[in-house]
Amino acid sequence: MLDFDINKNLTADSCISKQELSAQFFQLQHLLQQRRAIKYFDAAQAMDDRELDAILASASQAPSAFNLQHWQVVHIKSAQRRAEISALAYHQPQIQQAAALLAIVMKKNVWQTAAHIAQAGGEKIQMHLQRLYGDKPQLARDEAMRSCAMFSMLVMLAAEAAGYRSCPMSGADFTAIGKCLGLDATQEICMLITLGREASDNTIARQQRLPLSQFLYRI
Amino acid sequence: MLDFDINKNLTADSCISKQELSAQFFQLQHLLQQRRAIKYFDAAQAMDDRELDAILASASQAPSAFNLQHWQVVHIKSAQRRAEISALAYHQPQIQQAAALLAIVMKKNVWQTAAHIAQAGGEKIQMHLQRLYGDKPQLARDEAMRSCAMFSMLVMLAAEAAGYRSCPMSGADFTAIGKCLGLDATQEICMLITLGREASDNTIARQQRLPLSQFLYRI
Repeated sequence: MLDFDINKNLTADSCISKQELSAQFFQLQHLLQQRRAIKYFDAAQAMDDRELDAILASASQAPSAFNLQHWQVVHIKSAQRRAEISALAYHQPQIQQAAALLAIVMKKNVWQTAAHIAQAGGEKIQMHLQRLYGDKPQLARDEAMRSCAMFSMLVMLAAEAAGYRSCPMSGADFTAIGKCLGLDATQEICMLITLGREASDNTIARQQRLPLSQFLYRI
Repeated sequence: MLDFDINKNLTADSCISKQELSAQFFQLQHLLQQRRAIKYFDAAQAMDDRELDAILASASQAPSAFNLQHWQVVHIKSAQRRAEISALAYHQPQIQQAAALLAIVMKKNVWQTAAHIAQAGGEKIQMHLQRLYGDKPQLARDEAMRSCAMFSMLVMLAAEAAGYRSCPMSGADFTAIGKCLGLDATQEICMLITLGREASDNTIARQQRLPLSQFLYRI
């Protein structure tokens, strides 16, 4: 059982009582509120590859259109490559200090060879995908971006649950980083994610979220 | 405590022992494995608006670049509008049968009026955002897509934790649905999500995920 203050977890927007929602919901809510983007990691703390494997395998339960699983993960362990990427990402401190640096890569053309993912009727699905995406590369890219962002969200959430902090990054020269990683024209970076233990002297406050009334519309 | 088989939750990819990861991780892993896209909902089961509010407030803990919170949610309650949207989404059964139908909308230009989100130094941030996105609408749209997809992932996960099933949808005429919802040129649909209780006679098997060896690269 997780340790949390039930009243603190109830937002001002919602007046639902704790009896009406499950303990499972409040556990997840706690995890979502706990996660935040961390800029300062403890460079002395490493992360076992097997832990990262468990986090990534869990995150791969994310949904994707036609179950295409558009994501690739590049786990950048080389110190040389991390230094190069740091220079291409405004020298943000987390790039070199975090225990793990991941590039989440979109396989924009995965639909072209998707028949193997299908458990049945692969040829029919392939024809459907051809009709859908064949002359619409922007639509295929949007789909890859959606899928990879959902996957990325679960990577960060699974890491948080495993005791690691995370930071998603899009402020970087993705084209140059893609070259550094050897990506081809069918691949593009969705985001970078750093994972690790938080530096003990990090005192940046968590940023607030807008109330429901500013983003929810009922029609 | 959740009821799950610890061995079943360990993927073949990962040989990490249960002692090395926390109960919190396995609880989340269970939730991620339990979530799946549901096409057939029980149309007789409603969802309380306050439950949906709690789910959306939790999901809004998602990260976004500069904390811009690019998402808007349109909760489409009107039967007339749901029928119109169904016709624009290949009459997928979940559109009309699910307890709730949501359009997750990207606010592509939210960076233009973002100073109010900043807790300090709003004017300086506004100038930075202008330099970053001012002449790059595609970059601003990518950012909105990433943020809204991460938010959408958390909507589905929070719903699952609250006992509801979900279905993300991108196979629809988003331009026409946007018109139906009265969106303007600065807004675009990221995805539709249906939420509700699963129909008891749904027997479609969960789709499998690729093993780590097919999407993870260490360099």
